[in-house]
Amino acid sequence: MKCRDYTVAMGRWPPGARSRLEGAALELFVEQGFAETTVPQIAERAGLTTRTFFRHFADKRSVLFGVEDEFPALIERLMGEMPLSHDPMTALVEALRAVTATRFDGLFDYLKARRAVIETDEGLRERELRKVSLLSDVIETTFINRGFDDLTSSLAAHTAVNIFSVALDRWLDQKRPRRTLSEYLDETIDAFGQLNTLVTL
Amino acid sequence: MKCRDYTVAMGRWPPGARSRLEGAALELFVEQGFAETTVPQIAERAGLTTRTFFRHFADKRSVLFGVEDEFPALIERLMGEMPLSHDPMTALVEALRAVTATRFDGLFDYLKARRAVIETDEGLRERELRKVSLLSDVIETTFINRGFDDLTSSLAAHTAVNIFSVALDRWLDQKRPRRTLSEYLDETIDAFGQLNTLVTL
Repeated sequence: MKCRDYTVAMGRWPPGARSRLEGAALELFVEQGFAETTVPQIAERAGLTTRTFFRHFADKRSVLFGVEDEFPALIERLMGEMPLSHDPMTALVEALRAVTATRFDGLFDYLKARRAVIETDEGLRERELRKVSLLSDVIETTFINRGFDDLTSSLAAHTAVNIFSVALDRWLDQKRPRRTLSEYLDETIDAFGQLNTLVTL
Repeated sequence: MKCRDYTVAMGRWPPGARSRLEGAALELFVEQGFAETTVPQIAERAGLTTRTFFRHFADKRSVLFGVEDEFPALIERLMGEMPLSHDPMTALVEALRAVTATRFDGLFDYLKARRAVIETDEGLRERELRKVSLLSDVIETTFINRGFDDLTSSLAAHTAVNIFSVALDRWLDQKRPRRTLSEYLDETIDAFGQLNTLVTL
């Protein structure tokens, strides 16, 4: 789990204590492994106290889930703000695009390093999957609230998560971010549209 | 983890040692929990020796993955047998339908109890997810071999797994099997087709 490519330069992080802790934690997880890193080490690297750490995060695991933990609530709020007359799949895609552009596009290095750390630990993978499942549940509920049946709502939610996950993985598979996640998302949505034309069920 | 509804009556299992061990293990997992069950207990319940157990399975965890472990290889073989001129999504759906009808439809009680046991243990959930991921990889490779690009192949694979998972979960959510998984699969494929008509990307 030592890979210079993934090292996050702290200077690139915004100045707030929370962001500094996130950057410092990820640096240490990449350098020496998730299991080997302690909260006091993270606080020290960030130039803060352990007490400050615990004002922001419950434990070292939670530091990795700050950015994405807001994702389901954001999607729910954005979709809730759209008029009910709005075509639901278009509303969903617009919400995904908005969150991608404002919350993900600038975080390539962080998200790539984060993915590599999560892959090293079963507990982290489990928590990541629970979060994906929560996102799916939120989208499903939005569709049900718009009057769609359970099956359609479930499929729409799984499809959206599927499209987003494929785009995110392809984006992070790049060595350097030549294109934004937004571009990958659009490409994936297009390919999904073409996949439909292959289906002659 | 004690629920009479899920208890698998051993008399309903085919007579081979392997099937008896699978039935006995699941009974014990449901009755007393996965962590609390030992290999000697499973062998005893099945009326066999521990030595026979280890001729069929590496450990008690593997007993739960006999049925589904064949799934990826079966899909790969079935899709490989279809002519390359065949529309790939249709080939995929036909393969899913064939495996569903021959391997899943008769196993409602077993699969429902199995799902409940897997949900109780992090290691089992992790292994289940790895298997779903393997199925997705196999389908993706089949599409790439048929000349489709990486993105389309990845989306097609995720979509197929998504459709199958939604159908399987809805099927197992029933208290009693009023309908077959094949019927749920067809319903889910139809709903997916209608979902596409909602997409105005």
